[in-house]
Amino acid sequence: MNDRIPIPRDPANDYTAEMAQQRREFVTGRTGTSLQHVGSFTVDPAQVAGNIENYLGVAQVPIGLAGPLRINGEQASGDFYIPLATTEGTLVASYSRGMRLLSESGGVTVTVVKRSMQRAPVFEFASAREARDFGQWLIDHFDAIRAAAAATTRIGKLTDIEQYAVGNLLYTRCNYTTGDAAGQNMTGKATLAACEWIKAQHPLHPSYILSGSIDTDKKHSTINTLRTRGRRVIAEVTIRNETLQRLMRVEAKTLLRSRQISQAGSFMAGSANNGPHAANGIAAMFIATGQDVANVAESHAGITYAQLLENGDYYWSVTLPSLIVASYGGGTGLGTQRECLEMLGCYGAGKADRLAEIVAAVVLAGDVSLGSAVLAGDWVSSHDKLGRNRP
Amino acid sequence: MNDRIPIPRDPANDYTAEMAQQRREFVTGRTGTSLQHVGSFTVDPAQVAGNIENYLGVAQVPIGLAGPLRINGEQASGDFYIPLATTEGTLVASYSRGMRLLSESGGVTVTVVKRSMQRAPVFEFASAREARDFGQWLIDHFDAIRAAAAATTRIGKLTDIEQYAVGNLLYTRCNYTTGDAAGQNMTGKATLAACEWIKAQHPLHPSYILSGSIDTDKKHSTINTLRTRGRRVIAEVTIRNETLQRLMRVEAKTLLRSRQISQAGSFMAGSANNGPHAANGIAAMFIATGQDVANVAESHAGITYAQLLENGDYYWSVTLPSLIVASYGGGTGLGTQRECLEMLGCYGAGKADRLAEIVAAVVLAGDVSLGSAVLAGDWVSSHDKLGRNRP
Amino acid sequence: MNDRIPIPRDPANDYTAEMAQQRREFVTGRTGTSLQHVGSFTVDPAQVAGNIENYLGVAQVPIGLAGPLRINGEQASGDFYIPLATTEGTLVASYSRGMRLLSESGGVTVTVVKRSMQRAPVFEFASAREARDFGQWLIDHFDAIRAAAAATTRIGKLTDIEQYAVGNLLYTRCNYTTGDAAGQNMTGKATLAACEWIKAQHPLHPSYILSGSIDTDKKHSTINTLRTRGRRVIAEVTIRNETLQRLMRVEAKTLLRSRQISQAGSFMAGSANNGPHAANGIAAMFIATGQDVANVAESHAGITYAQLLENGDYYWSVTLPSLIVASYGGGTGLGTQRECLEMLGCYGAGKADRLAEIVAAVVLAGDVSLGSAVLAGDWVSSHDKLGRNRP
Amino acid sequence: MNDRIPIPRDPANDYTAEMAQQRREFVTGRTGTSLQHVGSFTVDPAQVAGNIENYLGVAQVPIGLAGPLRINGEQASGDFYIPLATTEGTLVASYSRGMRLLSESGGVTVTVVKRSMQRAPVFEFASAREARDFGQWLIDHFDAIRAAAAATTRIGKLTDIEQYAVGNLLYTRCNYTTGDAAGQNMTGKATLAACEWIKAQHPLHPSYILSGSIDTDKKHSTINTLRTRGRRVIAEVTIRNETLQRLMRVEAKTLLRSRQISQAGSFMAGSANNGPHAANGIAAMFIATGQDVANVAESHAGITYAQLLENGDYYWSVTLPSLIVASYGGGTGLGTQRECLEMLGCYGAGKADRLAEIVAAVVLAGDVSLGSAVLAGDWVSSHDKLGRNRP
Repeated sequence: MNDRIPIPRDPANDYTAEMAQQRREFVTGRTGTSLQHVGSFTVDPAQVAGNIENYLGVAQVPIGLAGPLRINGEQASGDFYIPLATTEGTLVASYSRGMRLLSESGGVTVTVVKRSMQRAPVFEFASAREARDFGQWLIDHFDAIRAAAAATTRIGKLTDIEQYAVGNLLYTRCNYTTGDAAGQNMTGKATLAACEWIKAQHPLHPSYILSGSIDTDKKHSTINTLRTRGRRVIAEVTIRNETLQRLMRVEAKTLLRSRQISQAGSFMAGSANNGPHAANGIAAMFIATGQDVANVAESHAGITYAQLLENGDYYWSVTLPSLIVASYGGGTGLGTQRECLEMLGCYGAGKADRLAEIVAAVVLAGDVSLGSAVLAGDWVSSHDKLGRNRP
Repeated sequence: MNDRIPIPRDPANDYTAEMAQQRREFVTGRTGTSLQHVGSFTVDPAQVAGNIENYLGVAQVPIGLAGPLRINGEQASGDFYIPLATTEGTLVASYSRGMRLLSESGGVTVTVVKRSMQRAPVFEFASAREARDFGQWLIDHFDAIRAAAAATTRIGKLTDIEQYAVGNLLYTRCNYTTGDAAGQNMTGKATLAACEWIKAQHPLHPSYILSGSIDTDKKHSTINTLRTRGRRVIAEVTIRNETLQRLMRVEAKTLLRSRQISQAGSFMAGSANNGPHAANGIAAMFIATGQDVANVAESHAGITYAQLLENGDYYWSVTLPSLIVASYGGGTGLGTQRECLEMLGCYGAGKADRLAEIVAAVVLAGDVSLGSAVLAGDWVSSHDKLGRNRP
Repeated sequence: MNDRIPIPRDPANDYTAEMAQQRREFVTGRTGTSLQHVGSFTVDPAQVAGNIENYLGVAQVPIGLAGPLRINGEQASGDFYIPLATTEGTLVASYSRGMRLLSESGGVTVTVVKRSMQRAPVFEFASAREARDFGQWLIDHFDAIRAAAAATTRIGKLTDIEQYAVGNLLYTRCNYTTGDAAGQNMTGKATLAACEWIKAQHPLHPSYILSGSIDTDKKHSTINTLRTRGRRVIAEVTIRNETLQRLMRVEAKTLLRSRQISQAGSFMAGSANNGPHAANGIAAMFIATGQDVANVAESHAGITYAQLLENGDYYWSVTLPSLIVASYGGGTGLGTQRECLEMLGCYGAGKADRLAEIVAAVVLAGDVSLGSAVLAGDWVSSHDKLGRNRP
Repeated sequence: MNDRIPIPRDPANDYTAEMAQQRREFVTGRTGTSLQHVGSFTVDPAQVAGNIENYLGVAQVPIGLAGPLRINGEQASGDFYIPLATTEGTLVASYSRGMRLLSESGGVTVTVVKRSMQRAPVFEFASAREARDFGQWLIDHFDAIRAAAAATTRIGKLTDIEQYAVGNLLYTRCNYTTGDAAGQNMTGKATLAACEWIKAQHPLHPSYILSGSIDTDKKHSTINTLRTRGRRVIAEVTIRNETLQRLMRVEAKTLLRSRQISQAGSFMAGSANNGPHAANGIAAMFIATGQDVANVAESHAGITYAQLLENGDYYWSVTLPSLIVASYGGGTGLGTQRECLEMLGCYGAGKADRLAEIVAAVVLAGDVSLGSAVLAGDWVSSHDKLGRNRP
């Protein structure tokens, strides 16, 4: 029995319902598992070319609807209904609760403060001194390097090259704006072109590796938190103490008090995020809207910063320093994904900032809700009521 | 016009096709977006109660089939075909390539070395001295505390309570084994019971917060990397230099050489993982198999450790210190998710270790593939060939 | 001309004034530098055998006197005058200012909550599975391992062995109490004996390296902050708002407000300490009292945790998780060092806890002073008045 | 009995032998401790004004002589004898051993690749959007800001202002070159002037705190490792395998093998330095040469990067990303400190780079020695032979 996954003789027939079915039958034949649900999809397989190889079918992930959430962004402004794809009971309910609080507080103000996607080649030299001098050469030839990168893409723009010297190596971060695409591939290709130009032009013709690991692609890192990867987005709200008491049964000063404890704990633990659970909202929106879900790794990093105001109200902000979103490319154009983007007004060109704003606003809603629930004692009981696990 | 998301008068009617449709129409009415694809699902809405609130429909995420991957686990043993749900072109192809290499190398050996899910309450006292003495009291009363926790669950077992003193606080990590469930809710409930018992029994009746943030739920953290969250799983392989050259066009000594560069870069960057891209395989398997996808945040942490052997072969291991998986509860029982678990032999009771083994093996396959591609120069060209972004 | 540093023919003559002089003349001959001050010391060179090799003379580091500082420790109780050895103008004045505030607030309460010095051997195996099973063997044979370690020292006590699995390795932290010595050498020797016993007794006779780097000797690390290295000491005070205003010209609520900013900044920066400047007081006391000054690396880590109380007063604590001090061994018995220990009542057996308490209290005094000065605007002006740098 | 430390009626009499004696008598009166050694110093107390307050006397720290160490720096070139002030037996011997190895290998090549000392003010706004726009204003007005800073110092030069947005705050790092001074006070004063100018000129007159904690003064941090604090210095050597075997009884390939283990361990532990013990050499040189010893906190961070060469030799580098040294100001002009600087040719103007090179070379020597000793099994035995602790 052949153990190779079926592929068509003619590649042109790869993305067809027949091939997908043939693969499901292959699986069934070997494992006895029927893939009836996996085989139920509404998108023409031809459409997923470029998104998947060895197409088998689909995962159906339940979507819940949350909102309305009032957002005061520069791109997203108004009341939004949010599709959250998850299998975790309570999540949609909890985010909805937070959205109500934020909306009653006048909405959440969101700002994209930086855009920076990168590929991080590292260059090798005979000595640190050569590497240092090469660093100066990079600065001197930046315009030409940018031009070499630009030849591969009309969207990505090389903005700057950060340098980090270690031993006889020069690690760099080549930072780009990438329009409405997430940009990992675009920056990879542009940086390859830049590196090849550098290698050809620099007298030492330095060897390089296209990633020296400090782009920390698909990984959380402190460097991303500091220097940004994707978009740096900040969601803010000022909540009246009265509203907190009424909707969350918690006082502003209690929130601040518990904030000290969370901050000390997060700091000690070396946590990627000193707030409650950004990853929940991000993962749920990423699945729904066709984002690269592996980027939850980078995107879930966050810095909560809050203050108790003189009048007793509470200023709550969350900064997402490496939120990676796209409104174009990747999975954004597929059936359900496109619909979810469209219901947010985030499909296609010129919409990535808008999407980033909405995601950050959603994160704040979820953090406000869970952060309050932990204090008000609703946390376990609500999971008991809504969740699936009944051990 | 009412801006509230439709809910049924009778909660018993909430999880019905009608309510889902009503919500989709609500969205269409407000946004003009048709949700035809979102509304195409094959699971009875009644089944998603416990997984979602305000059910709207589904996200259809394409699944590609990778493999066969030979795994030498304690639970998973043999050749496996892996469902990967993603919208990122090249991912399935790249993982398949790595699986071939690993399989030709005799397969990947996988070991679950630790199981530990936690809730991390923090207790407040008048002074550090009181907190310290309370710590001793916790040790002295561990059996009774375990019993209090056990009353809420027949699966979760409290194994130990770690203590971390800060100021007049005692942060704890209450560690459990949670069988085949991920266990966040189970441990939350059990720890609540334990805390209530403690509060009642301890002479000072200390106040507490159920999470002092050092469980770092939905967040990467160094404490998780060190102390484990979920399962600590290690995948290992020894690859013949000849096989590397033949399949990956790279030499073992080149891999080790580039490893030094990756390690220095990852260390400097404060990265959660010093390997290539664990998050890709994890996210794709998590979506396919009904895991809590937000746990990519914790699960993508990893430690790559490699050695060049005397005979020129290459030992490559990846340690996932906080891999959170379930074969039971959460989204595991839904249509496509259950099918994907079943094709791996991972559905239901007693299968979580097996699933953990498979995920770790997949991660190693992906890391081997990408780690080699970066060096062999295939990285950008393969994305160009297979990917969607053509800027 | 011989370029070798002079050593005596008879090692018995090494620690003499003559040899030291001969070496100074050697330096003068080669560099033209007179070492008149370096050659002025009051301790018999015979006494520094065990502290130094190639003895040349001494560094004279100015000591300033700070205090009185009221301390409410378990060992240190009363008013203390603190010798601070530094060349940084303003430091003594600033610490004195903080000491006055703390003393007027009833003194600082200090508690040693944990003692743990370690050596961290790593063991190598053929596979992760072997390493895991070895971990269980370690647990099963703990008493015998402890006995093997105990044979080398009557002071060090092996308390537990932490395990951290990576690949086919088992990293351990062998934790000891080490009485009044810092204990790095004591634990090294004891752990060597333990490892040799293990290697002989375990069926696989595993090879090991005595340090797998997770003791992080002479290095700050998150693992030390979490798990303690040396002593974990907590200093606390509650300061009346009125006292803050009078002495520091700052309000409690302003302190808390700025605390939010410091915490967010420290968290983002990946800082070893989220308070102002623990290293200053620690280094100055370490030099004065004959501590191993390189341990400033580990000892300066800290977690500040504060709360604004209902009555407007301010609770301020600093937790030093890896403070390494000794009242015995090392440099503690030398002339000036012993005098400084004696003036604190910290010389000799049974005094290390007392010294740890005093150091932590001093750190809090310095943090309170600088933390207030930054807000009140005294920071730059006081350095201008007292410091040396006048650029 | 008055508990106040004696101060003179006329401040002009503060820095006199009499006042110092009066304070020692005060201590003796209260504690019964004779301070005979502390009172033995050879520097006129008038000289320590600006270095210390409440001058009491000195700590005499033993200095050992190590070397010769061959250094191939841009400023330091030739064979050096190194004064190491420590009370830790074995340290000088171990460093000497490493120096011999490095010298026999042709010497250590050292390069200062970056100079950057900073003060990090944080600015507060009503919203993130205001903060972002302020960031652009900072860029637009950089020349004027630099001029405002320059008015306070003729040495410090503002090179750039890094921006890190969080909530409604803008954290900055104002980076300077500071000539031969460490520069913390210089940059503090210059940044204060810059901030006052900004506050006056910007339409919103933003309030600010002079340190938002991301300069991480006196603290290790990832941001310092990445962005540099003080000087970024790299020491490199290529060691012949034969020399390693002969002098260290270890093979190059064994070093590389153990490097994998150290790197995985350091990475997992969240260590500030993935090499052996930079803090030892740094602390010993800092005490000897009048540096601010508290800066061991920042300066001990390091990145070891090594490769096994094709010919079997070993390339070993250590990068110190935040080494803070001065050849001018602070304690550099005092008796013993100045002598130790002079014997290195590092006293006074234009010598700080040279001193940085020497320190980095010494660090590498110590790391090579200890790194080899751990493997060759000399570690514990040498401490036994040379050290003081005999428990």
